[in-house]
Amino acid sequence: MTNSLPTSVDPKALQEVLDGRWAHVRRDARENLGDQDFLPVYGETMQEARERVTRAAKKLADSGRVGFGFPKEFGGEADSGASVTSIEMLAFADLSLMVKAGVQWGLFGGALELLGTRRQHEKYLRDVMSFDLPGCFAMTETGHGSDVQQLRTTCTYDPATETFDLHTPHQAARKDYIGNAAKDGRMAVVFAQLVTQGTNHGVHAWLVPIRNEDGTPCEGVTIGDDGPKAGLPGVDNGRLSFDHVTVPRDMLLDRYGQVAADGTYTSSIENETRRFFTMLGTLVRGRVSVGGSASSATKLALDIAVRYGDVRRQFAAPGEDREIVINDYLVHQRKLLPALAKTYALHFAQGHLVETMHDVQTAVHVHGEEVDENAQRELESRAAGLKVAQTAHATATIQMCREACGGAGYLQENRLPHLKADTDVFTTFEGDNTVLLQLVAKGLLTGYRDTFGSLDGWGRVGFIADMVRETVLERTAARALIARLVDAVPGRDDDVPMLDRGWQLKMFEFREKHALEGAIKRLRKNSTTEGMAPFDMFNDVQDHVLKTAQTHIERVVLESFVAGVDRATDPAAQQLLDTLCDLYALSTIEADKAWFMEHGQLTPARAKVLTSTVNQLLKQLRPHMVTLVDGFAIPPTWKAAQILEEEGDRQEAMAARDAELKAATGEDAPEGTATALEVAPAQ
Amino acid sequence: MTNSLPTSVDPKALQEVLDGRWAHVRRDARENLGDQDFLPVYGETMQEARERVTRAAKKLADSGRVGFGFPKEFGGEADSGASVTSIEMLAFADLSLMVKAGVQWGLFGGALELLGTRRQHEKYLRDVMSFDLPGCFAMTETGHGSDVQQLRTTCTYDPATETFDLHTPHQAARKDYIGNAAKDGRMAVVFAQLVTQGTNHGVHAWLVPIRNEDGTPCEGVTIGDDGPKAGLPGVDNGRLSFDHVTVPRDMLLDRYGQVAADGTYTSSIENETRRFFTMLGTLVRGRVSVGGSASSATKLALDIAVRYGDVRRQFAAPGEDREIVINDYLVHQRKLLPALAKTYALHFAQGHLVETMHDVQTAVHVHGEEVDENAQRELESRAAGLKVAQTAHATATIQMCREACGGAGYLQENRLPHLKADTDVFTTFEGDNTVLLQLVAKGLLTGYRDTFGSLDGWGRVGFIADMVRETVLERTAARALIARLVDAVPGRDDDVPMLDRGWQLKMFEFREKHALEGAIKRLRKNSTTEGMAPFDMFNDVQDHVLKTAQTHIERVVLESFVAGVDRATDPAAQQLLDTLCDLYALSTIEADKAWFMEHGQLTPARAKVLTSTVNQLLKQLRPHMVTLVDGFAIPPTWKAAQILEEEGDRQEAMAARDAELKAATGEDAPEGTATALEVAPAQ
Repeated sequence: MTNSLPTSVDPKALQEVLDGRWAHVRRDARENLGDQDFLPVYGETMQEARERVTRAAKKLADSGRVGFGFPKEFGGEADSGASVTSIEMLAFADLSLMVKAGVQWGLFGGALELLGTRRQHEKYLRDVMSFDLPGCFAMTETGHGSDVQQLRTTCTYDPATETFDLHTPHQAARKDYIGNAAKDGRMAVVFAQLVTQGTNHGVHAWLVPIRNEDGTPCEGVTIGDDGPKAGLPGVDNGRLSFDHVTVPRDMLLDRYGQVAADGTYTSSIENETRRFFTMLGTLVRGRVSVGGSASSATKLALDIAVRYGDVRRQFAAPGEDREIVINDYLVHQRKLLPALAKTYALHFAQGHLVETMHDVQTAVHVHGEEVDENAQRELESRAAGLKVAQTAHATATIQMCREACGGAGYLQENRLPHLKADTDVFTTFEGDNTVLLQLVAKGLLTGYRDTFGSLDGWGRVGFIADMVRETVLERTAARALIARLVDAVPGRDDDVPMLDRGWQLKMFEFREKHALEGAIKRLRKNSTTEGMAPFDMFNDVQDHVLKTAQTHIERVVLESFVAGVDRATDPAAQQLLDTLCDLYALSTIEADKAWFMEHGQLTPARAKVLTSTVNQLLKQLRPHMVTLVDGFAIPPTWKAAQILEEEGDRQEAMAARDAELKAATGEDAPEGTATALEVAPAQ
Repeated sequence: MTNSLPTSVDPKALQEVLDGRWAHVRRDARENLGDQDFLPVYGETMQEARERVTRAAKKLADSGRVGFGFPKEFGGEADSGASVTSIEMLAFADLSLMVKAGVQWGLFGGALELLGTRRQHEKYLRDVMSFDLPGCFAMTETGHGSDVQQLRTTCTYDPATETFDLHTPHQAARKDYIGNAAKDGRMAVVFAQLVTQGTNHGVHAWLVPIRNEDGTPCEGVTIGDDGPKAGLPGVDNGRLSFDHVTVPRDMLLDRYGQVAADGTYTSSIENETRRFFTMLGTLVRGRVSVGGSASSATKLALDIAVRYGDVRRQFAAPGEDREIVINDYLVHQRKLLPALAKTYALHFAQGHLVETMHDVQTAVHVHGEEVDENAQRELESRAAGLKVAQTAHATATIQMCREACGGAGYLQENRLPHLKADTDVFTTFEGDNTVLLQLVAKGLLTGYRDTFGSLDGWGRVGFIADMVRETVLERTAARALIARLVDAVPGRDDDVPMLDRGWQLKMFEFREKHALEGAIKRLRKNSTTEGMAPFDMFNDVQDHVLKTAQTHIERVVLESFVAGVDRATDPAAQQLLDTLCDLYALSTIEADKAWFMEHGQLTPARAKVLTSTVNQLLKQLRPHMVTLVDGFAIPPTWKAAQILEEEGDRQEAMAARDAELKAATGEDAPEGTATALEVAPAQ
C-alpha cells in the first residue's frame, strides 16, 4: 500500500519497464525512424497524401525495417513479436503510413506467407518485402464485413482448363474498403467461396493479379475508389469486382485446402467452419497490431494533453498572481489521469499478448510444432478482447485530449485532429468491436470449445449444451503473486482497504465469474422457455453476454498491470506504477459501481469512500503526470504538435509583461483579478 | 402508463409536435433551402471549401433568409426565435456554412446590433445583412478563451487625437480562432481592455477595419491563418494582431460604456464585472444557436444510422433464410434508441429555451423594457447548460452512429465523417463545456445572485456567504402537470412502478436537490477548514459542483420533454412520445444507478428491474425507430449519404440471387449457414 510517493521518479526507469521484450526494436525505431518523411503532413489533398505515403512506404521498405515476421530466407527475421512492435512504433508517425505498411506486410504479405506454400513464397515474397509488388488483402465485401463466412464472391474450378472462375455476382459481393486497391496494388489475396465438382467448400484465398504495370486494371477486374474518408487520407482504399476472371489453379493459396488437377478437393481439416477459422486464426497478428497501434496513438494524444495542461493557465486563484495551471484542476485530473492509468494497464496487457502470440506462432510456423488448439483459441480471444479495449480507449481518450486542449486541439498543426480522424475506424476494421466482444463471450461461455473463432451469433442448436458447466477463472499473468494477494484477503470484504491489491483483484474476479454464471443461467433458462425463438433466446440477453466479455478483459488487463509492476527494478518507479495501478483498478470499479452495489460487493457507504479514494490518488499522482508521459519515451521530433513548441514561451512572455505592469503601478491587485492590467488609478 | 404502442404512428403527427413555435421557419427552410450549393462537398481542399462557403453565404444572404434577429428597418424581422430556428435548419446543410452564417449574422452582426448604437447601425447593418461587409467577432485570444475578462489586448484613449490605440502586447494576446478573419473579413468587432485617463475600465468592443478592399491588411494589422483544422474547412479561421492601430473614438461600440472627447468614462452600470457580463449576456443567442445546431447534426446522424440499420443485415438467425437486420439486435437498439430518446428530450428543451430567450430579448431590445436581472441570469444559465448537453450528446451520438454504420460510416460520401469532424469543436467554442457547467453550478449555488454570468472559478472571498441557505427547486415547464404527477407519488418509492412519470420526476428532483445541498455543505465545511487554501476549498469538491449542474440540466430537460408530450394532439403520437419519454427518464437514471443506490433511492433489486424495464422499452420502441427519425422531417435531398440510396437495393439484389441459387439446389440450407451458396451436392 502506498501512502506517499517519492518526490520524483526517473522516467527512464519507467521506460525500461514499458519497453518490454522487444525493447531493442523500440530503441532502434526511436533512433532511426525519426525521418520527416514518415510524419503526417497537414492540409494535403487526398492525392498528395496517397503519393506521399506510397513514397514513404518504399523508403521504409528500403530501410529494411519491415516484414520482421517473414522467414529469414526472404529477408525477414521470423520474429512475430518484433513485427508487431515495429508497427506499434510506426504508429507514432503517420498513421496512414502505419496502415499502408500493415496492409502490405501484415495482411497481404502475411496471408501469402501463412496461407500459401513454398513455391508461392519463393515466387513472390521478396518482391512483397521490397514493396516492388504492392498488394491487397481482399476479404471484406460491401455486404459482409463481420460475417466473412458469408462472402458472396465465388471461385469455381473448371478441370477442363485447370483454372478457376472468380466472379462477383452482385454489388453486395464487391470487395470493399480494400487498402492498396485504389492506386497501388498489383495483386490481391482474394477470399471467395471455393466451388469444385459441384460442391462449395467454403471460403478460401487466391493470389490474383488486379493491375497491370501500366496502371490499367487486369482483364475482367473493375477497380473502384472509396473516395475521401474521415481520415487515413494516405491509404488508397478501393473496391474490386471480378467479372468471370480466370485464375490459374496454382494461384490458390493452398496450405489448408487443395484442389487437384481433376478438381478433387482435399484438406487436412475436414470441418469447413473449423478450416476457415483456422486459416483466419493465423492472421491474428493483424488484430494484435491494430490494438497496439491504437495504444500508440493514445499515448501520443495524452503526451500532448498532459504537457499542454502543465503550462496552460486559465482563471485566477484568489490571492495568486498567476492564473491556475489547468492540470491543477481536479476535474482536469479526472479526465487525464485515469486515462493515463488505463493506458499503462493496456500497454502491459498488449506486451503480454504479443509475447504469447510470438511464442504460439513461432512454435507452429518456425519450429513446425502441432497447433495447440486451446492455446490458439485463447490467443485469438485475448487478441479480440484487447483489440476492443485498446481501440475503444483510443477513441474516447483522444476525444477527451482534443477537448482538454480546447481550440488549439482543433487545429491540425497540433496533431490531435490527425490522431482522432485516423484512429476512428480502428473500432471497426480488423473486427467490429461489438462483434469481437461476442467472440470473446462465446469463448468464455463454452470454455473455448465451440468457437472455431467464428463470429456468428449463436447458430448451432447445440450451443446451449456446449456451455461450460463450471466457471473456472484461469489467471493469465503473475499467477503466483496474484494467488498470494487474493488468498490474503480476509473473508469480510467490507473492512479491507481499497488500496489492497488482493481486494481489487478479488473484485474483478468476482465480477467476471458472476457475470459469466449469470449469462449461462439466463441462456439456459431461455432455451427451455416455451415459444421462444432461437434468435430471441440469445438476443434477449445479449447485453449480459457482452458484459461477460468486458469484465473478463478488464480482469486480464489488471493481471498484466500487476505483473508489470512486479517487474520494475527501480524502487521509485515501482512505487509510482503501484499507485497508478491502484488508480486503474479503483477507477474501473468506480465506473461500474452500480454493478458492485447491485451484487453486494460494495455498500453505499463504501461506494462513497471509493470515489474519495480515487480523488486522493489523483492528488498523489498529479506531480508525476509529466513523468508518466515521459515514460512513453516518444521522441520530441515525432510529435508534430505546435502547441508543445509554443505555449510555454507564450505564457512566460505574458507573465513577464504582467509583472512589468504590476511593478509600474506599484499596487496590489484587486482580489481575484489579474493585476497586470491596472494602471495608475485615476487621481 | 403505456403497456403497448399502436402498430403505427404518423410521422407527420410527430413532426407537428416537434416543429414548435417557429414551425413556419422550419417549413420554409425545408421547402427553400434544398439548394445543392448549401450542401457539403466531400474531398475539397481547404481553399476550395472556403471559396465555396463564401459564395454560399452570399447566396444565402441574397435569399433574404438571414439576420431574422435584426431590426426590421434594416431588413430583419426583430425575431430572435426565428433567427435561432433558421440556424438550426441551416445546420442540416453544410456545417461550415452554418458557422460562417453564425459568425457573420450572429456574432459580428449581433455584437454590432446589441453593443453598438443607432448611428453605427445606420452606417453598417445593411451591409452586414447583405454580406457586402463580411466581419469577425474578435474576442478569443490565444491565451484566453474561457476567462475572457482577462484578455490582454489593450485599447488606450488619447484625448489629444480623440482616438484609441489598439495594441497586442505579446503572442498570448493575439486574437485567435476568429472566423471570417483569414480570408473574407473587412472589419472586426474587437474586444480589448479599455484604458482612459490612466484607468482600466475592463473589456469593451470596437469596430475596427482589418482588411482593405484589395485584400491587404489595414495598417498595423497582421492577419494570420489558423490553417487546416479537424473540420469546418469552409470557415476561414484566422489570427489578428494589432500594432498600435489607431481607432477613432466613434468606433467604440458604446451602448454600455462611453468615452467623452476629453476621455471621461461613463456607464449606466457601475460595477465593471457586472457591466462586462451584461454585455456578454446580450450575445446569448450565439450559445443557444450552437446548442440547437449540434442537435440538428445529431438528428441527421441518427436518421442515417437508424435507416441503415433497418436494411443492413449480418449473421444468420438459426432456421431463417435471411440474415438478421441489425436494428433487431438488442445491443444495437441500446446504442440507438436511448440516444434517440435523449435527442427528442433535448429538442423540447431547446424549443423551450428559444421561446424564453425570444421573450426576454424581445421585451428588452424591441419593446425597450427594463432588464429583469433574474430572468436574464436564468436564461444565460439555461443556455449554458443546454449548450453543454446538446454538444456533448452530439459528439457521443455521432461517434456511435459512425461505428453503427461500420466501414461505410468512415466514407465521406456517407455524411457521418462531415458531421463528426465539424461538430467536434462545438464542445469548445461558445464556451468550453467544463467551464460552462461551472457557470451553471455557480448560479444554482447562489440562487443566481453571484454570477454576473462570470465564468471564473471562485474568486471572491464572499462567495461562500453568498451561497443559498435553502435549496428550492423551481420547475421550468408544465408546472401544474408536473406538480400533480409528483404529488401523486406515494411516499414509499420502492413500490411505485418505474413507468410512473411522477416517480421519474421525483427521482430527478431528489437527485438535483441532494447534489446541490451536498455541494453547499462541502463548500461550507472547506471554508472553515484550518489551513486550506482558497483554491483548494473549491477545487477539492469541483466534481460535486459539476455534478450539481449536470443533474439540474437533466431535470430541466425532462420537464421540457413532459411538457412536449403533453402538447401532442394526435393520440398515437402522444403514446409513442410518452413511451420515448419513459426511455429517456429511465435510461438517464440507469446511467447514474450508482448515485441513486448510494443515496437510498434504489435498492439493488430495483436497480436490476430498472435495466430490464429499459430493455422492455427498447422492444416496444423497436418497430417505431424509423418513424421516430421520420419525425425530424429532414428532406431526403439534404442527407447526402450514399448508403441511404444504395444499401436497400444491394440487399434486395443479394436476396434475389440467394433465392435463385437455393431454388436451383432444391434442398434446405444446412442449419445456420446461408443457403444460397450450396450447389448440387457431389454425386
